[in-house]
Amino acid sequence: MKTHITRETVRYNETDRMKVAHHAGYLIWFELGRTGLMNSAGFSYKNMEDNGVFLPVIEYTCRISNSVGYNDRIEIETWIEELKNRMVAFGYEARINSILAATGRTRHVCINSENKIIKLPENIMDLLKTFQQDE
Amino acid sequence: MKTHITRETVRYNETDRMKVAHHAGYLIWFELGRTGLMNSAGFSYKNMEDNGVFLPVIEYTCRISNSVGYNDRIEIETWIEELKNRMVAFGYEARINSILAATGRTRHVCINSENKIIKLPENIMDLLKTFQQDE
Amino acid sequence: MKTHITRETVRYNETDRMKVAHHAGYLIWFELGRTGLMNSAGFSYKNMEDNGVFLPVIEYTCRISNSVGYNDRIEIETWIEELKNRMVAFGYEARINSILAATGRTRHVCINSENKIIKLPENIMDLLKTFQQDE
Amino acid sequence: MKTHITRETVRYNETDRMKVAHHAGYLIWFELGRTGLMNSAGFSYKNMEDNGVFLPVIEYTCRISNSVGYNDRIEIETWIEELKNRMVAFGYEARINSILAATGRTRHVCINSENKIIKLPENIMDLLKTFQQDE
Repeated sequence: MKTHITRETVRYNETDRMKVAHHAGYLIWFELGRTGLMNSAGFSYKNMEDNGVFLPVIEYTCRISNSVGYNDRIEIETWIEELKNRMVAFGYEARINSILAATGRTRHVCINSENKIIKLPENIMDLLKTFQQDE
Repeated sequence: MKTHITRETVRYNETDRMKVAHHAGYLIWFELGRTGLMNSAGFSYKNMEDNGVFLPVIEYTCRISNSVGYNDRIEIETWIEELKNRMVAFGYEARINSILAATGRTRHVCINSENKIIKLPENIMDLLKTFQQDE
Repeated sequence: MKTHITRETVRYNETDRMKVAHHAGYLIWFELGRTGLMNSAGFSYKNMEDNGVFLPVIEYTCRISNSVGYNDRIEIETWIEELKNRMVAFGYEARINSILAATGRTRHVCINSENKIIKLPENIMDLLKTFQQDE
Repeated sequence: MKTHITRETVRYNETDRMKVAHHAGYLIWFELGRTGLMNSAGFSYKNMEDNGVFLPVIEYTCRISNSVGYNDRIEIETWIEELKNRMVAFGYEARINSILAATGRTRHVCINSENKIIKLPENIMDLLKTFQQDE
């Protein structure tokens, strides 16, 4: 199994009055994880969109084990959980100093600029396959 | 089953370059839904926190059926899905003009200001029970 | 002078670890103020953009007098401070229970979908004139 | 004059339906710039707050020269513009590939945890002085 590691620092504005990061922050870090995964292989998520291929999120799940705070160095590990012709699911693990903070999953459908569901282009398929989790 | 309805309008800054609302927006609307539910019964979510009782999110799920766009009037229906001594789960349905946009669920644990898990105070328990879904 | 009043409630996720609303929140409330002003006159900001006319912010200023907290009812008063052929500036006052929280100003240039500066369309000009501050 | 350089990448969720970064994004990048400046000198902004010293923003200004887009590498240069016993102002320049994107300024007052205005602690004063702009 190949995974991708992204590192971010929790921003001040990502915290809320409970003095820890707001739970929506994980979705942003997961997004940085999966675009980082794609960019890491020399593939540009932005170019993909500029070529009329989009991967909107159709489902997400997040389980929070430990809260994260301002300035914490967060490490997001990302991999492919499921890969179909027209759909892809990413898996995520977020950690602070090797302590699990959260796990997550996002499912995406592939659409074109007319909002029609299409097959994942072959080059994206090939790239994503290299990050697919063996089970 | 008693549910609560919250109405919001999709803000400009909640959209992204795909020209629809970013998927993290649902978590914010769900949050407005559940705090609206509590406030609707004359109960103040803010007072609860000022009294040292917190309900942090420990898990969330969202399934998106239709994208929502800038200025869309979004209606969030909220109810109680599960209610235990130290945990509560809310269910949500977001709609635009009666068309389903997304369904969701958040689970919360009850903690005090020392971050210890505690029982839900009785008055909160009683309030939440009135919104509990019969099954 | 004609002004427009928009009412919003400070959201949980808009607070930060200082336990009050993050200062960027004002820009969002000002945005709701000015789009509210335009919508109030039966004019749709969204339609304007769909017709290829945009009013990007090119400058903003905000002076904060008092912090605002979670669940505070914020009232945003909006008016036109300056109106030129290709530029418009809005003025704002944000208050909580009649107490001044912040004052602000945003300047906007009018562009088309090719990113070229254009004259403000006549119908927008006419609408905005009715909100112009007399001095 | 000593300045501090912070580098960030524009996030997907920071864009809006105009397909460029929302103008509030600059406040977040400026915040990363000034906390980066303080952290760069071995000083922890977080520790300062944990010791009951806060620097809330009381005024901000931003002038946008060029829009920035998704995945752009943004460079924020930060310096001290004004330094008084109870007040500090930071200046910022944001650039993409050496092209100016925006300039900004934030003013902060120093307060304690009881929300009282206090003198900037000496060690912070000394640190900030080294970044003060000569004119």
